[in-house]
Amino acid sequence: MTDIRKVTVLGAGVLGSQIAFQTAFKGFEVTSYDIDDKALDAARGRFAGLVDTYRREVPGADDGSAAATLDRLALTSDLDAAVADADLVIEAIPEILSLKQDTYRRIGSAAPERTIFATNSSTLLPSDLADATGRPDRFLALHFANRVWSSNTAEVMGTERTDPAVYRRVVEFATAIGMVPIELHKEKAGYVLNSLLVPFLNSAAALAAGGYAEPADVDKTWKIATGAPLGPFQIFDIIGLTTPYNIMAHGDEAAQKLAVWLKENYIDKGKLGIASGEGFYRY
Amino acid sequence: MTDIRKVTVLGAGVLGSQIAFQTAFKGFEVTSYDIDDKALDAARGRFAGLVDTYRREVPGADDGSAAATLDRLALTSDLDAAVADADLVIEAIPEILSLKQDTYRRIGSAAPERTIFATNSSTLLPSDLADATGRPDRFLALHFANRVWSSNTAEVMGTERTDPAVYRRVVEFATAIGMVPIELHKEKAGYVLNSLLVPFLNSAAALAAGGYAEPADVDKTWKIATGAPLGPFQIFDIIGLTTPYNIMAHGDEAAQKLAVWLKENYIDKGKLGIASGEGFYRY
Repeated sequence: MTDIRKVTVLGAGVLGSQIAFQTAFKGFEVTSYDIDDKALDAARGRFAGLVDTYRREVPGADDGSAAATLDRLALTSDLDAAVADADLVIEAIPEILSLKQDTYRRIGSAAPERTIFATNSSTLLPSDLADATGRPDRFLALHFANRVWSSNTAEVMGTERTDPAVYRRVVEFATAIGMVPIELHKEKAGYVLNSLLVPFLNSAAALAAGGYAEPADVDKTWKIATGAPLGPFQIFDIIGLTTPYNIMAHGDEAAQKLAVWLKENYIDKGKLGIASGEGFYRY
Repeated sequence: MTDIRKVTVLGAGVLGSQIAFQTAFKGFEVTSYDIDDKALDAARGRFAGLVDTYRREVPGADDGSAAATLDRLALTSDLDAAVADADLVIEAIPEILSLKQDTYRRIGSAAPERTIFATNSSTLLPSDLADATGRPDRFLALHFANRVWSSNTAEVMGTERTDPAVYRRVVEFATAIGMVPIELHKEKAGYVLNSLLVPFLNSAAALAAGGYAEPADVDKTWKIATGAPLGPFQIFDIIGLTTPYNIMAHGDEAAQKLAVWLKENYIDKGKLGIASGEGFYRY
């Protein structure tokens, strides 16, 4: 059980809106914050879309509970008000260090002492942000994966300064909103999932980019050998090629070469994955 | 269809016996060679075991066809005789360069000109062996995975000197014995499967060895995110920890550290995987 009741989610983009919706769906009072009316309009569209998605894809959610979720979701563009009575703030704003630091400084003053702050950042470490929060003992990372209703891991990662009791409360909260908490004992760039996925996708890309084997044969090999439903190039297409490209472009020399290959042969040709109708495969 | 009729498999160890049995099961006349009577007795035991395994695990093989396979399997410890009338020789002897080279020199003289030679070597490249065969144009790698009746990929990899027509004939043969041929266009250590599996298992081991996350949580993350039936540590346990250990021990500095971790925490404690009753998990 969790003693957290009121949750504020900062940022109502793709993942922020999913986190807010899932939390409200599980019975919590949620405030969804974004910067202005235009962003909030977009958020309303996302929430309406999520009602449909949950109805279709979440077992039991077609009984009215998906629609009723909206009753527990308040939207605001007033940051101070958004955090004024929160037990937990989950931050899912753009991955820009200075923007996040400024935001933490501001909510560090505006939120009550008791409020726990959690960042959903994929690329920054919580220790990059801890000082700006003014409450490093009540700050940690809580990292969700896209499509939270089905890819329901929540990676929990503190800094050396995170209070272990706060860490436990966030693990309990993650469970309470239907997530499978994945506990990291130390800070790690990429958490667990990307620490596995990045080298896996890079090794697959290296086979195709080096002219050793065709993507379809690489996928076939992996699926037969491990019983997996998806090979690495199918995973590329599901994620979309832009995110792996960005990670490769910031990697070592070998990874940067793969980034160039991915860009010239796929991204520049509009082959971005399933969402664009074609990636390594056609859809 | 394939024009290959008579197949000789050199080495009747775990994989050699499986390759010979699978080939005979699919209707080919197979000669299984090993060095002496003791090795051939062990081979007979393996073939008897494979009859039972195929009966249980291969759809349709409980109609007598698994037992009848033995009628197409001849055993011999006479190397010259074993290859004297072979269309294809598949070599699955121990991974010792000089031993393989000596063997290829000998069968290069003993086998007819038409005979194709294929190595199942996991760790050597076919170009390490091509000269010793005396027929580099009719030599390539045909690499099977353990449990060939279910993990039925056959990676086909030539050298720059392999005749493309020979390559095609071996691809057709692989299909004819129920394998899914995985075509490599260039030599690559580790072929496709190990080129994916090694970095994948290493990245998982690095998470646990570094104290970042528990093996069970790493597996959970991978399975939820990708829909795979097995996480990396379950795959470690199925393969057995000794093989990944040997690969890590021959890797770069980071991999060697993982090898030490694997040895001290698991292998030295008799935790070798499923076969020993315990690895990362208990069975």
